[in-house]
Amino acid sequence: MSVRYTDHIRRLPSTVPFVGPETTERQRGRTFRARIGANESVFGPSPKVIAAMTDALADIWKYADPESFDLKNALAENLGVTPANIMIGEGIDGLLGTAIRLIVEPGVKVVTSLGAYPTFNFHVNASGGELIQVPFRNDHEDLDGLLDAAHRNDASILYVSNPDNPMGTCWPGSEIERLIDSLPSGTTLFLDEAYVEFAPEGTAPRMNTDNPNVIRFRTFSKAHGMAGARIGYAIGHDEVITSFNKVRNHFGINCTGQIGAAAAIRDQEWVAHVRACVEQGRERLYAIAAGNGLQAIPSATNFVTIDCGRDGVYARAVLEALGDRDVFVRMPFAEPGNRCIRVGVGTDDDLDIFEEEFPGALKAALAAAGD
Amino acid sequence: MSVRYTDHIRRLPSTVPFVGPETTERQRGRTFRARIGANESVFGPSPKVIAAMTDALADIWKYADPESFDLKNALAENLGVTPANIMIGEGIDGLLGTAIRLIVEPGVKVVTSLGAYPTFNFHVNASGGELIQVPFRNDHEDLDGLLDAAHRNDASILYVSNPDNPMGTCWPGSEIERLIDSLPSGTTLFLDEAYVEFAPEGTAPRMNTDNPNVIRFRTFSKAHGMAGARIGYAIGHDEVITSFNKVRNHFGINCTGQIGAAAAIRDQEWVAHVRACVEQGRERLYAIAAGNGLQAIPSATNFVTIDCGRDGVYARAVLEALGDRDVFVRMPFAEPGNRCIRVGVGTDDDLDIFEEEFPGALKAALAAAGD
Repeated sequence: MSVRYTDHIRRLPSTVPFVGPETTERQRGRTFRARIGANESVFGPSPKVIAAMTDALADIWKYADPESFDLKNALAENLGVTPANIMIGEGIDGLLGTAIRLIVEPGVKVVTSLGAYPTFNFHVNASGGELIQVPFRNDHEDLDGLLDAAHRNDASILYVSNPDNPMGTCWPGSEIERLIDSLPSGTTLFLDEAYVEFAPEGTAPRMNTDNPNVIRFRTFSKAHGMAGARIGYAIGHDEVITSFNKVRNHFGINCTGQIGAAAAIRDQEWVAHVRACVEQGRERLYAIAAGNGLQAIPSATNFVTIDCGRDGVYARAVLEALGDRDVFVRMPFAEPGNRCIRVGVGTDDDLDIFEEEFPGALKAALAAAGD
Repeated sequence: MSVRYTDHIRRLPSTVPFVGPETTERQRGRTFRARIGANESVFGPSPKVIAAMTDALADIWKYADPESFDLKNALAENLGVTPANIMIGEGIDGLLGTAIRLIVEPGVKVVTSLGAYPTFNFHVNASGGELIQVPFRNDHEDLDGLLDAAHRNDASILYVSNPDNPMGTCWPGSEIERLIDSLPSGTTLFLDEAYVEFAPEGTAPRMNTDNPNVIRFRTFSKAHGMAGARIGYAIGHDEVITSFNKVRNHFGINCTGQIGAAAAIRDQEWVAHVRACVEQGRERLYAIAAGNGLQAIPSATNFVTIDCGRDGVYARAVLEALGDRDVFVRMPFAEPGNRCIRVGVGTDDDLDIFEEEFPGALKAALAAAGD
């Protein structure tokens, strides 16, 4: 006897989008001193969020409202859309999975950037889609190249993150609007705006929920400091948003996260505070890079990607040498980004540790390279 | 322009498995006085769980461990299996959705009981499967009928809940073992044990993770009093469990829920306490039914299904009359169970309110029926 998997599932590898830092810690048998590799916000959520979540624990025996009424209303007010334009999910990851299931089946073509968010690719593969990957250009997602690939391949989805991960760069909203206006008629843009709160004014394109071919994805995991709460949201045309109900896990949202998120969106002062902390931290990371004779790529996110000045093998050696020194960072997976390491804005202590250990790590990597 | 949905998705209705009590409250413009319709545990989680979750809030800025290492270890120890036999998900709902995606595609046949858990049916429909539904027999899931339907239809999945929802009855574990031994070779049993902690000793079949054709589903939403935390687990053959990684949302678990669940499984005294409270509450509900000249179906869960003695139209009138009196209960969706209402074991206050309002609700329903 054996389980009768579908043919598609049988062919899929049992994979993970990426390995969590806890797994690495268990393999090493030692915890990290600085956890600045997972694009989390070390500044945490607003104290008002913690208070709301603490209060919410008294009702943890109840299922959360599957319609997320209060949270959708708080978001709608903040965004200037209606609650019917919003879907809540288990982080952007969960929403990407749901939205992809609506559109992708074996044979469907999907365009993304080579080395962009691996979890998006994971979900496309899980639904049997065919990925077309366009390399970054000058450390930016190549909007013209992506558009061209979408046209040539008659893609059903085009994935763009703005600001992007892992390079941390962004396009002005006007460029994204130009992209939207030029989309092939059968292509839906998945616009991942996980980091948009950290970006310069004008990075987000105008809200336009009349267009069914744009679904935007945002999260409480970054600027709101609630990665562990697993609350993200999609913004789009109300009919498209309603279609999520066809496949989503209706009772999948945890109540503490949902209640905390509503408190978070109502505390924009905290977001402004975090943004200021992140700007300071980015400046410090730029300075650390320069102090080691390296170039940092100007960032519109809460991480800084540092060009290690050689190839991917060397950058991996730097990453591993930092790991040996108990500093957790990550690096881009694909060329040409994989000449870099990606360092999160940490606390002052985190950045002290990074500053202290980075020169030694670079030296160790050089030695490993035989220089 | 419009979104290029798959043909299957285009044909699916935008539906919900069932409407949450908050939605009904918003429609009524009035909250319920007794919330005893959602099969939640009014006794809540252990104080140790609340303490662990409160502490966990300090780290809410971190993503939760996607491998759920600590929770899997706590469960493995409790169950006498290995961590590799366990998958954590966003409630049983989330795990059912994932497991169904591994096996079901358009054309695949799935057997369940008529009127059993609607969310299971929802996920089968979302994956395009064909449901074959076998009526309950003597208020029990009809194991022989289900087995027969699985053989006749060459079903890929057979869903059985034990104890079952919505009737609250159960089979001894030995009967489930007999069912397992008689499964068609291509059929995987999905054994939903959400309520097993409330059932008599011997209701759970032996743990046997050598059999790839049995996946068991359990939850922290019922006896552990953590419905809002959204933590469930699947138990099965390690290769089957690993296959969940092909499609699951790897970073979908919230950290407070995960940490609370590990504390919950380590506090079996609390489970024993809740079990005792539930036994008392069931006795009281039996007595309330008898006091109104009605028969309650003996329950192995934390709810009691009361036979209203007439047809589904009448039971619905009783349900609505209870709603008018601000008492939230539910009822089975399908014949012959829909002659009943399903009442959760509430607090003493909840049951006081139910006891007070039930006679009036019955009278109102009789009047509506023209008697």
